[in-house]
Amino acid sequence: MPLPQPLLDLLSSHFGDRLSLSAAVREHHGKDESHFPPCPPDAVVFALCTEDVAVAVKACADHRVPVIAFGTGTSLEGHILAPHGGICVDVSGMNQVLEVRPEDLDVTIQPGVTRKQLNEHLRDSGLFFPIDPGADASLGGMAATRASGTNAVRYGTMRDNVLSLEVVLADGRVIRTGGRARKSSAGYDLTRLFVGSEGTLGIITELTLRLHGIPEATSAAVCPFPDLEAAVNTVILTIQSGIPVARVELMDAAMVDAVNRYSKTDHKVAPTLFFEFHGSQAGVQEQAERVQAIAAEFGAEGFQWALAAEDRTKLWAARHSAYYAGINLQPGSRAYTTDACVPISKLAECLLETRADLDQSRLKSTIVGHVGDGNFHVLLLVDPNSAEDEAEAERLNHRIVRRALALGGTCTGEHGIGQGKKGFLAEEMGEALDVMRSVKAALDPLNILNPGKIV
Amino acid sequence: MPLPQPLLDLLSSHFGDRLSLSAAVREHHGKDESHFPPCPPDAVVFALCTEDVAVAVKACADHRVPVIAFGTGTSLEGHILAPHGGICVDVSGMNQVLEVRPEDLDVTIQPGVTRKQLNEHLRDSGLFFPIDPGADASLGGMAATRASGTNAVRYGTMRDNVLSLEVVLADGRVIRTGGRARKSSAGYDLTRLFVGSEGTLGIITELTLRLHGIPEATSAAVCPFPDLEAAVNTVILTIQSGIPVARVELMDAAMVDAVNRYSKTDHKVAPTLFFEFHGSQAGVQEQAERVQAIAAEFGAEGFQWALAAEDRTKLWAARHSAYYAGINLQPGSRAYTTDACVPISKLAECLLETRADLDQSRLKSTIVGHVGDGNFHVLLLVDPNSAEDEAEAERLNHRIVRRALALGGTCTGEHGIGQGKKGFLAEEMGEALDVMRSVKAALDPLNILNPGKIV
Repeated sequence: MPLPQPLLDLLSSHFGDRLSLSAAVREHHGKDESHFPPCPPDAVVFALCTEDVAVAVKACADHRVPVIAFGTGTSLEGHILAPHGGICVDVSGMNQVLEVRPEDLDVTIQPGVTRKQLNEHLRDSGLFFPIDPGADASLGGMAATRASGTNAVRYGTMRDNVLSLEVVLADGRVIRTGGRARKSSAGYDLTRLFVGSEGTLGIITELTLRLHGIPEATSAAVCPFPDLEAAVNTVILTIQSGIPVARVELMDAAMVDAVNRYSKTDHKVAPTLFFEFHGSQAGVQEQAERVQAIAAEFGAEGFQWALAAEDRTKLWAARHSAYYAGINLQPGSRAYTTDACVPISKLAECLLETRADLDQSRLKSTIVGHVGDGNFHVLLLVDPNSAEDEAEAERLNHRIVRRALALGGTCTGEHGIGQGKKGFLAEEMGEALDVMRSVKAALDPLNILNPGKIV
Repeated sequence: MPLPQPLLDLLSSHFGDRLSLSAAVREHHGKDESHFPPCPPDAVVFALCTEDVAVAVKACADHRVPVIAFGTGTSLEGHILAPHGGICVDVSGMNQVLEVRPEDLDVTIQPGVTRKQLNEHLRDSGLFFPIDPGADASLGGMAATRASGTNAVRYGTMRDNVLSLEVVLADGRVIRTGGRARKSSAGYDLTRLFVGSEGTLGIITELTLRLHGIPEATSAAVCPFPDLEAAVNTVILTIQSGIPVARVELMDAAMVDAVNRYSKTDHKVAPTLFFEFHGSQAGVQEQAERVQAIAAEFGAEGFQWALAAEDRTKLWAARHSAYYAGINLQPGSRAYTTDACVPISKLAECLLETRADLDQSRLKSTIVGHVGDGNFHVLLLVDPNSAEDEAEAERLNHRIVRRALALGGTCTGEHGIGQGKKGFLAEEMGEALDVMRSVKAALDPLNILNPGKIV
């Protein structure tokens, strides 16, 4: 169905040349980094302020046309695809850091600010924002998908680090979900309701985030293990011992090999843990000693330390490029990414059974994980033109999800539901999915906000 | 309106002598620890399992009769009062610790388990549950009000420490809001939606909670200050410096005096901070040294350490009885309790202006605060038979709330809205209150769940 002309006229008069109908622009806004084929919106508007977003949403509501928020397009479950067409609201131009308040360890930003941009802005303040998905995603998108990353084991996820939001509702009204107090019991937790709602309940137009002091001391280390089991058991015991590691990341041997090729590093090709410790000088040393003792118990082959900031940056840049490194193993492929997360005591079982499964498959695959949270990703490399590859990846993913659910876990630790995991959500939530549907119907009765996602 | 006879017949046949219509039982279930006059339900049923709760709620839905969950009756904003009559579902008999999983640092319990009972149960496990409102409240009630307490500065609130819930919905259906994974992006955050919903969206029948390892080392200290400002500035700088204090609690001189009388302690009568430090031996010492240095800058009069576990228990028992100690200053009085919470940089301004306000009032008052979170309580002692006292307490509370809101804070850090703060909620949330109302209407279309609270 073509867009109603009165809607286009209204958007054109408000947005001028910030409304685009060009195929290239629509195409760009109709694909993310998932394996899903592109599915472009009918038009794109480039918002520069909250009012722009409100005008677009109100106009779409008046004409019952879908409206989809877009940040950087780096989501992994088809979140920003437009299966029902409609208007894409690109908020990447809303990229102002509005106010840093070092005295309260918080910051207010527009949703298009990316995580790297924010930390660059904070560079001289002694503060940082810890949540770091692989991509340099927009913080609006990260809030919308309840993203996390390597630091979540210590600093939590977007759930824990958003103090409040400004949101445009489905009818174009603008609300604030709270103030800047560290805690509040003032009614329903609307902040947490919108965090993770993937643009289906409202569009985030401003975020107030918690910041953290850059630790007095930081050290990082890489440690190869004789096998996957030894690496995972080291993680489990570290977490169970309550050692406050800032990061503990796993790569299987295939992933280390991929990263070495892509990032020109020379890590030993073996199951490997990447650690980071934050604290005082004494605290960091104490944590490192305790973890080394645990790792030694499981036959670790020695810690290689990255003490200089520059070396740490290089180490984590390599880790953050793992997704691209994985894809690079098979040029022309797309990555089918899994996202299981289980209670820590079940991690060894879940990971080892998964690795055994993968070893039986003809698809190339690598494993990388935020294992301190019990979360890991399998990158399954599929030829985008092969239905067989796709089917095999789906089969493997199904097995991984079912295994995680049977162990008390979730089908998605941090990527979200989008289009890709709707079936799994029903399995995971049972009748609770009805509650989600009721909430969706209450807040978006016309079903115009990112339709076809989550519920 | 009397209860419909068919409803009573059904409840009687299911609950037998666990249904009570006696005046004494109804009276007991119609009052909490707030200043609100009692408002009893028409009947009380004593639930022993989830099915009991589901049966009661379904029966109430069929007859459009209000249904109110009751734990220990220690809420402070009239949460469990029955202004529209109806059935009270007492879950205090659902007090089983169902499963402790030390290997995952979590536990599954029934909602009537109290915080002290849980920690008693965990005593030999090396684990503890940190959230500690003054009262020995039920954990179901603590989740329902998004409670916190003295440890929140380090361990977060109920929001952060509930992994998932089992909930009976308004039509009697039973759902689970999630699994046991540490993080999840699986759809809307229903766990956080029910945490803090005060029994207005569903009744919590099971909780899975995060546990924490008992720290290797703990130390606590009491430190008097020359004035309130010096004490508050010590707190602000401690928090801004990122020192991970486990507890930092303020009492003004009047409160210290009240506690001394009530708990037979002999603290110097002065504005006082109570600290606790958790960590390794070295870490605790390091934290203590840094805080002492900050306190000294502001003229602190020396730390008195409680190193033995027994001394710490005594210290914190005195702190936890502050509410009762305050009331005890004026026998026969009830306490009108405020609950403002502001960004940490605004705490001195908010507290000092408040203290000045109080000094002008004829009501007796004391201040106690979880100041590391920017949260403090004024206990205003009112004669329950004096409308003038009530009006004066309201006037003072209004000024405190408006001040907190103007400073970017909230009218309630941890007590909730209940009946008492509905007006303030509208002021604080603006149009966002409409979103809360939509959610309420969607999940409880007949408005039978704890009607007259929050929205």
